[in-house]
Amino acid sequence: MSGYSGGEMLRLLVGHPAFEVCWLGGDTSSGLPLSEVHAWIESYPAAYELSGMEVQSIGATEDLSGLDVLFTCLPAGESSRLLASLGSRGPARVIDLGPDFRLPEKTYTKWYGKDHPLKEELGEWVYGFTEGYRCRIAKARYVANPGCYAYAALLALYPLAKQGVIEGRVFLDGKSGLSGAGRVVERRLLLSEAAEDTVAYAVGGHRHQPEIEHVLEDLCGPVSVVFVPHLVPMTRGLLVTAYVPLRSGITSESVLRAFSDSYEKEPFIAIVSAPPHTKVVRGSNMAAVHVVVREDEVGGGVVAVVTVAIDNLGKGAAGSAVHNANVMLGLDETAGLDRMPLWP
Amino acid sequence: MSGYSGGEMLRLLVGHPAFEVCWLGGDTSSGLPLSEVHAWIESYPAAYELSGMEVQSIGATEDLSGLDVLFTCLPAGESSRLLASLGSRGPARVIDLGPDFRLPEKTYTKWYGKDHPLKEELGEWVYGFTEGYRCRIAKARYVANPGCYAYAALLALYPLAKQGVIEGRVFLDGKSGLSGAGRVVERRLLLSEAAEDTVAYAVGGHRHQPEIEHVLEDLCGPVSVVFVPHLVPMTRGLLVTAYVPLRSGITSESVLRAFSDSYEKEPFIAIVSAPPHTKVVRGSNMAAVHVVVREDEVGGGVVAVVTVAIDNLGKGAAGSAVHNANVMLGLDETAGLDRMPLWP
Amino acid sequence: MSGYSGGEMLRLLVGHPAFEVCWLGGDTSSGLPLSEVHAWIESYPAAYELSGMEVQSIGATEDLSGLDVLFTCLPAGESSRLLASLGSRGPARVIDLGPDFRLPEKTYTKWYGKDHPLKEELGEWVYGFTEGYRCRIAKARYVANPGCYAYAALLALYPLAKQGVIEGRVFLDGKSGLSGAGRVVERRLLLSEAAEDTVAYAVGGHRHQPEIEHVLEDLCGPVSVVFVPHLVPMTRGLLVTAYVPLRSGITSESVLRAFSDSYEKEPFIAIVSAPPHTKVVRGSNMAAVHVVVREDEVGGGVVAVVTVAIDNLGKGAAGSAVHNANVMLGLDETAGLDRMPLWP
Amino acid sequence: MSGYSGGEMLRLLVGHPAFEVCWLGGDTSSGLPLSEVHAWIESYPAAYELSGMEVQSIGATEDLSGLDVLFTCLPAGESSRLLASLGSRGPARVIDLGPDFRLPEKTYTKWYGKDHPLKEELGEWVYGFTEGYRCRIAKARYVANPGCYAYAALLALYPLAKQGVIEGRVFLDGKSGLSGAGRVVERRLLLSEAAEDTVAYAVGGHRHQPEIEHVLEDLCGPVSVVFVPHLVPMTRGLLVTAYVPLRSGITSESVLRAFSDSYEKEPFIAIVSAPPHTKVVRGSNMAAVHVVVREDEVGGGVVAVVTVAIDNLGKGAAGSAVHNANVMLGLDETAGLDRMPLWP
Repeated sequence: MSGYSGGEMLRLLVGHPAFEVCWLGGDTSSGLPLSEVHAWIESYPAAYELSGMEVQSIGATEDLSGLDVLFTCLPAGESSRLLASLGSRGPARVIDLGPDFRLPEKTYTKWYGKDHPLKEELGEWVYGFTEGYRCRIAKARYVANPGCYAYAALLALYPLAKQGVIEGRVFLDGKSGLSGAGRVVERRLLLSEAAEDTVAYAVGGHRHQPEIEHVLEDLCGPVSVVFVPHLVPMTRGLLVTAYVPLRSGITSESVLRAFSDSYEKEPFIAIVSAPPHTKVVRGSNMAAVHVVVREDEVGGGVVAVVTVAIDNLGKGAAGSAVHNANVMLGLDETAGLDRMPLWP
Repeated sequence: MSGYSGGEMLRLLVGHPAFEVCWLGGDTSSGLPLSEVHAWIESYPAAYELSGMEVQSIGATEDLSGLDVLFTCLPAGESSRLLASLGSRGPARVIDLGPDFRLPEKTYTKWYGKDHPLKEELGEWVYGFTEGYRCRIAKARYVANPGCYAYAALLALYPLAKQGVIEGRVFLDGKSGLSGAGRVVERRLLLSEAAEDTVAYAVGGHRHQPEIEHVLEDLCGPVSVVFVPHLVPMTRGLLVTAYVPLRSGITSESVLRAFSDSYEKEPFIAIVSAPPHTKVVRGSNMAAVHVVVREDEVGGGVVAVVTVAIDNLGKGAAGSAVHNANVMLGLDETAGLDRMPLWP
Repeated sequence: MSGYSGGEMLRLLVGHPAFEVCWLGGDTSSGLPLSEVHAWIESYPAAYELSGMEVQSIGATEDLSGLDVLFTCLPAGESSRLLASLGSRGPARVIDLGPDFRLPEKTYTKWYGKDHPLKEELGEWVYGFTEGYRCRIAKARYVANPGCYAYAALLALYPLAKQGVIEGRVFLDGKSGLSGAGRVVERRLLLSEAAEDTVAYAVGGHRHQPEIEHVLEDLCGPVSVVFVPHLVPMTRGLLVTAYVPLRSGITSESVLRAFSDSYEKEPFIAIVSAPPHTKVVRGSNMAAVHVVVREDEVGGGVVAVVTVAIDNLGKGAAGSAVHNANVMLGLDETAGLDRMPLWP
Repeated sequence: MSGYSGGEMLRLLVGHPAFEVCWLGGDTSSGLPLSEVHAWIESYPAAYELSGMEVQSIGATEDLSGLDVLFTCLPAGESSRLLASLGSRGPARVIDLGPDFRLPEKTYTKWYGKDHPLKEELGEWVYGFTEGYRCRIAKARYVANPGCYAYAALLALYPLAKQGVIEGRVFLDGKSGLSGAGRVVERRLLLSEAAEDTVAYAVGGHRHQPEIEHVLEDLCGPVSVVFVPHLVPMTRGLLVTAYVPLRSGITSESVLRAFSDSYEKEPFIAIVSAPPHTKVVRGSNMAAVHVVVREDEVGGGVVAVVTVAIDNLGKGAAGSAVHNANVMLGLDETAGLDRMPLWP
């Protein structure tokens, strides 16, 4: 609860018309008043009452069965551990913003190099890609919120995969602000190291890739994907540039139609007329999506270049968690999420 | 209306429970749909209706007498020109975010090197330092919103000046993000020039200084002030560090009491326990205020160091304009301003 | 000469053991003393003598035949105009950092939508990709320095194209700091707009793409390329991430060998063991190159992910121009370029 | 040797015509090859030979008596510990970039709350303010390099103090990039926390203040000083704004003359005509100094506003250490320091 996603959850929940923050749990922050963990809360009157709330130890075997929803934002393995320890004292619903429940068992084992600690319960989890699994999420008790890159990539590919027009390997180039790396105190994340710098990482494979592959296969059939993430010197904001080879003969018009068909009723997706700036969605739950179709004159064929901008802490984490909570509880989907971006 | 303060006015008014945006005027932006002037509005559903609204020419002599409040965010001289041209077709109330109506006639003439274009009407304007002029603002038709540096400086000095404990010359060192320089397209404001750079400007005198002097004199008696502003490489955020010599014998306790007496009922001021980060108030209307009292061991005497952090576009511009509008219209003072800061 | 590449040329030439700055020409800056165009020069003693040098008008038909090398850093079309006007009064050698002479006539016509203004002289120009055209550059009178993205992309692809192991379409994702957009005073380049923001541009096609295609075809045979550039919020630094499908059966070892064979004797290329940070080469003429080979488990096949980091004003502009000048004049290739990066 | 000052020492020494790096010591980095400590060195050919050099443990009681100069860049207390342990096996000269030897014994005890660990040797140390102590530095065995803020503040005040025209308390407002806080891995220094943020710190008193007071008193007589430092969101660069009350009757001309008299022969000080940007000296050893004289119309009297820009790692640390080494060894003072700033 001391991380950036935890802080964003607070920011969204304090302003949410239907939720009340009843319990705060943390590991490194347990025992501290909230104002020491998220100092900004001290300067915001509407949150003064929260300010002194003490963060509880997530190791303690408390009874959380009275909670309607528990949002967990924990490092790999920690959510599983918490839920296992709670057992029947668990809350009515859980939305996990961490990576523990996003992959099917076999894929989990392959990418994590070990068995899933709660594999018998994996079947109860629904992947929180709201635009693709809305009905299942509405009925779910457990929702695994997507990884930030995975969410943006899925938004880029879903309309094309659904139409079955992808032909060949898709390349996904992700660029994220540093808050996406979490609030971990590592040298590479110091301003003096990371400012005025851009770098690729996980070039051999990143754990959000199997999320993307699994969801596309589940919803539309197999798609071959190569994904490489990068850190760019900013705090919030995530851009995925998707390079998508298309079946020959596909036109710009049909591609645009695929996107508008998929997204026109979605409350948090804007199909925009120029490649989106990440700052245009900063602090909001919106995704801005742009697509262009190019002919490959040397090699032949047609390629779509799709760019999707989200706030990695908004639609990429806390915002979509609240969206899913709204869906699960039958609330207005936009409740608590009607915030304009902070620009500039 | 194409500037950063204009954009922030929109962001605040779209989410305000009592206001509706009825008319948009601009100079360079006139004739354009709003979505071309503030692109972020295109990606925010709640503002879609505004998105296509056309910006009207402020030169055109339209009838604005039906408006409850007109907010003007124009370069020096332009608000005067607009109001002069409107004459009796003017709105019920005006809040001017520009510099035209902040100074008394004589001071204006001295700092601008010319007569005030609407000097006969200057007497109708109330300076929008809400914490000092609340009652007068509540009854005013015209409010001149403070300059961003001036507002932060006044918040730093008002409690001490009111107690009459300032003894000697006050030095005010201001640091502002670049959005404070406006949305003007100048080479010095390019990211490639301004990133990784800090610089002082207007070292010989800045127009916010006479605002500060005039208001302190009006409310508490004359105070000698030297103010120097600086640009620091960020977008939003303003910090004023005030170095205030105090009457000998003044204690830390009495200084702290002066601040809490002045501000404890203020909805938008938080007296904080450590020097405030500007980011802690980013996107909000809050001011975070910190004070410490130091002995001068070499020269003798006592000095207060006060630091005040605001968002230059929030409390330093659009936020306080909305606050003043709430006061003028008898609304809840926090209406439309209950936003948490965007952190990180 | 008032742009960022022009400034970097100065920085490199002032410290170069064999060159002396004899003539400075400019368009918008003509008539100004150099210290007004590049203010930093005023605070550097070794350049004081340059500080007062007046920038000459490039329109004036001066006699430059006494110059050993003329470096031109001008917007599209301007270098052609200058050289045409000079005629026989031209310098002994020209290195053009602008785009005028990088493409063969037919490609130029297609991308610029008009005939090349000096098409009869295009044959005399050698493309300044030193690692590929060293011998031709050594004998050239005219060298067209590569575009910044093109240079990084060529460094990523050349070893693989030379081996003939690329099989299928290559995707190139470029990320550049804003100085790559030049010192043009545009709203989108203001710090307040560009900080904390990432965006794609030219998604339908960018002029550096035909450079890459043409050079690869000329040196190794046709390669199909899709290139999309992005702006990331920093001043200097450029990263190209190349996604390269390889002939099946290619191993990591053979790919690494291709890179070391091509580059081991190159003075300005470092093959590094982790994806390179752009800041590691900031202010230097180095390119840091990293390659990894991945299996595509869903689609089959093998893909190389190559990342190349350069300083867009160094190896991407002024640094490689000086390198080419050294080659043309038979100097030590590293003369004047032995600068360590500025880190952090 | 793993910190930013240590890295900058390397950058300067590798390019220095008279020095050779013979020994590298470190605490946290001991046992590592240099390329793991300062990764940028791996991509710079001229430093390849250093790249594999192993960092020695500074705890080990090695014999360093063969070294001409030892530069120490260590946290408080560590230099003392190292020198005490070396005893007679110490090098011919030491330049300490840390804080251990900058204050006289009594002041040290007061600010550090304990006795100086090597108090009997304090008398052998000369404070490395080259412009004030050049002759003593030339003969010194031990030089204590000034703190970064202290150096800039001394450059601002020295000419005025020397003339005896300061009358009253001086306020010093310092703004530093984050590399000034060192390469310590603390949450507050993460890019996600520090970007887009400005904050004051040590508002109750900072250890560079007694350095300033002591040196001014020693060179010119007592001056009363209040200093407050701030962090601004950039990596390198330091600006001190000095607010200096002057004896009445002092003119602009005499103030300017005081500065030019003091600094006209100094190789690393440029008196500039507009308030200096910190970026103008980035990567160089220059200090850019600007002064303006203002009348205080409300309170009466005259005030000088002096702004001094340095690179905190250059003139504020490694650059001035090399400068002092040049002075101590009778070399050309600019040897190894003739680098132009990296702009932009």
